[in-house]
Amino acid sequence: MLSRQLSRRGVLLPLLLCASASRALSVSDISSSSSIKPFSIDTLTTPAVIIDKDTIEANVKRMLARSSSYNCILRPHVKTHKTIPGALLQTSNRRSTITVSTLREAEFFLEAGFTDILYAVPIDPSKIIRAAKMARHVHVTVDNIQQVAALINHGAPAPGERWSVVVMVDSGYGRDGVVPSDVEALELARAIDAAECMELFMLYTHAGHSYDVPYGDVEAIVKISEQERDAVVEFKKILKENNVDVENVKTGVGSTPTCSHPPQHLSGVDEMHPGNYFTYDYNQHLIGSCDVEDIACKVLTRVVGHYPKTNKLQIDCGWTGTSAQGKEHNYGCIEGHSELIIENLKQEAGTVTTGDGSAIDFERFPVGTILKILPWHSCASIHQHRKLHVVDGNDMVVDSWDCADGW
Amino acid sequence: MLSRQLSRRGVLLPLLLCASASRALSVSDISSSSSIKPFSIDTLTTPAVIIDKDTIEANVKRMLARSSSYNCILRPHVKTHKTIPGALLQTSNRRSTITVSTLREAEFFLEAGFTDILYAVPIDPSKIIRAAKMARHVHVTVDNIQQVAALINHGAPAPGERWSVVVMVDSGYGRDGVVPSDVEALELARAIDAAECMELFMLYTHAGHSYDVPYGDVEAIVKISEQERDAVVEFKKILKENNVDVENVKTGVGSTPTCSHPPQHLSGVDEMHPGNYFTYDYNQHLIGSCDVEDIACKVLTRVVGHYPKTNKLQIDCGWTGTSAQGKEHNYGCIEGHSELIIENLKQEAGTVTTGDGSAIDFERFPVGTILKILPWHSCASIHQHRKLHVVDGNDMVVDSWDCADGW
Repeated sequence: MLSRQLSRRGVLLPLLLCASASRALSVSDISSSSSIKPFSIDTLTTPAVIIDKDTIEANVKRMLARSSSYNCILRPHVKTHKTIPGALLQTSNRRSTITVSTLREAEFFLEAGFTDILYAVPIDPSKIIRAAKMARHVHVTVDNIQQVAALINHGAPAPGERWSVVVMVDSGYGRDGVVPSDVEALELARAIDAAECMELFMLYTHAGHSYDVPYGDVEAIVKISEQERDAVVEFKKILKENNVDVENVKTGVGSTPTCSHPPQHLSGVDEMHPGNYFTYDYNQHLIGSCDVEDIACKVLTRVVGHYPKTNKLQIDCGWTGTSAQGKEHNYGCIEGHSELIIENLKQEAGTVTTGDGSAIDFERFPVGTILKILPWHSCASIHQHRKLHVVDGNDMVVDSWDCADGW
Repeated sequence: MLSRQLSRRGVLLPLLLCASASRALSVSDISSSSSIKPFSIDTLTTPAVIIDKDTIEANVKRMLARSSSYNCILRPHVKTHKTIPGALLQTSNRRSTITVSTLREAEFFLEAGFTDILYAVPIDPSKIIRAAKMARHVHVTVDNIQQVAALINHGAPAPGERWSVVVMVDSGYGRDGVVPSDVEALELARAIDAAECMELFMLYTHAGHSYDVPYGDVEAIVKISEQERDAVVEFKKILKENNVDVENVKTGVGSTPTCSHPPQHLSGVDEMHPGNYFTYDYNQHLIGSCDVEDIACKVLTRVVGHYPKTNKLQIDCGWTGTSAQGKEHNYGCIEGHSELIIENLKQEAGTVTTGDGSAIDFERFPVGTILKILPWHSCASIHQHRKLHVVDGNDMVVDSWDCADGW
């Protein structure tokens, strides 16, 4: 069947290394030979993003084991970090089976030898020529007949090749995707099935609404993870009943909340594609996806000013350093100083005070003191930087990873 | 006096080209010889930032004229755009007298030949060695005796040179700066005055609270612009009365709201340092700093999906493309389509619906349609990009400018 798929699709499939068959890697396994001589975080220019080596290793290992226990391939979303070593860790070095959110990410990982890349945002006509150059290794996503028509209008990505097409399915998020029971959903799949230049690769859903449940309501998240499963399984069943060839069509589900609290079974589901779990963040902690100790991503900042009269510290991290997201939740929290909150962030500076109005012990925080922010949304904080610094348990930087940038 | 200042300061002073003496430049005046062959915005990868040539020229000209009419040097803050051509326009090609918010910006503009650069965030010890290398051309900011002590501890930036020190003054913002009437303010100035390795260059204030007035309350903004003026003028008077040598010490005020609505006079003020006025944005429009037509910065995005059942369009711009700021105000507005609002932005996608619940005319917005977002906060939107595309009145890109990046 593999060879048939290869010849039909023109897409290099993953080597089907089951996650359970491969041991979870450590950072040292994937560090390049040119990796750096360890140095203290004290020498980093702030703001900077550090990620804890031990914590990402544990996060990666846990999700690989979970997907394996559900007999699913883990196709991690790499948009949280956009780094090659991060994606190698997440895929146990298979260099395949990842999800991306931009064509630039697709190019970045393809250049590094990754294959079987799912570009998970609906494609529009302006991106087709660029996507065609990568079509042997990159699946494109549609949820509307206009996108399919644009692909057909372009024709085969190259002579003898076909577009590998993913249909986005709405499992209750209401942002994008087709609703399985809608006639438009069936018509879309039929149009793909009928087109010479494409074939249906996957039915894909992402339950973004799993982020909107009341904090700590794990039961609600489990219900949404059931919705994800049921949406793609049900859609595949409808297609089969309507004579669409779905024998080799995969199904994929995932968001970090739902993959952290999956349902009892994922029968009929082939793949899981969470992303944020790589580092987690303070929002995921409040949602209930992780313990606070699982947050691997921290934004380093330094105290630059003391304001005893207003009971404030100033830090050299603004929204350029950690994004403005989570303002209503004080942008996350400051590790090891639960008494402190970030009151406000401007472009290159922030103000810190106490949550309960008690006086700051200024002597504990002389100008120059490093603080570590556990950010509200790690995807957003990391996106503000071009490099991630990997640190060991002694706050020594053991590697620095480049992030893909742009679109 | 100029030669005395030069010899005392070791800082290359601006050539004291009064803004009124130099004509406002146009984009074509400062475009490099390698500037590009014009091309349509239709060929840009989205999301992308465009800036309207005619609008920035008008914005720049208006602020140069205003500062001149107040007998002030315009020392524009360049953090909104972080581009060399933008700063050349703002300074009428003098390549001096600018304000920056990071050391990376200082280096970027210094490498391009700019001098007399004011680094307007209080310095901490970790940044002193890097700042010392630029001290002939870069003024550093303090508002606390610990920062001064750290500079003294380092000593002169180079043999025969002195630190040119700016004291940040709090004119009511409450984020940073010294309060003129506080004894600590006088002590800080005395410590600078007494130190061999430094001298006092400027008393600087930024009324960040001008952004917090009720929308359209111009009177409140004018009052805050009076506070800015009075704070630095009063502080200089206090210092003089206390025998601090302030003969050559400058005073500077500015934020885009206060510089858009200055007081009746700025007597005793030497410089204005607004920044955002270069492009303005939708927030500045609501504040009352500009008309909507003065907003020069737009984020291009394309329609990628249609969702008639939920009355939504999907666009290929998320918070990576325009930042998550202004969510409560729909992130700004969509030019030419007042019926549409941006409902939500995720990482690489956004949903658009109508503000009044009326049905979207989907036929007007086929997949691939370009929309222009007038962003909530242009500094934040531009910061998400590495390049600004300058467009003429026919939506042709006539130049592309690189932005400084990092810290």
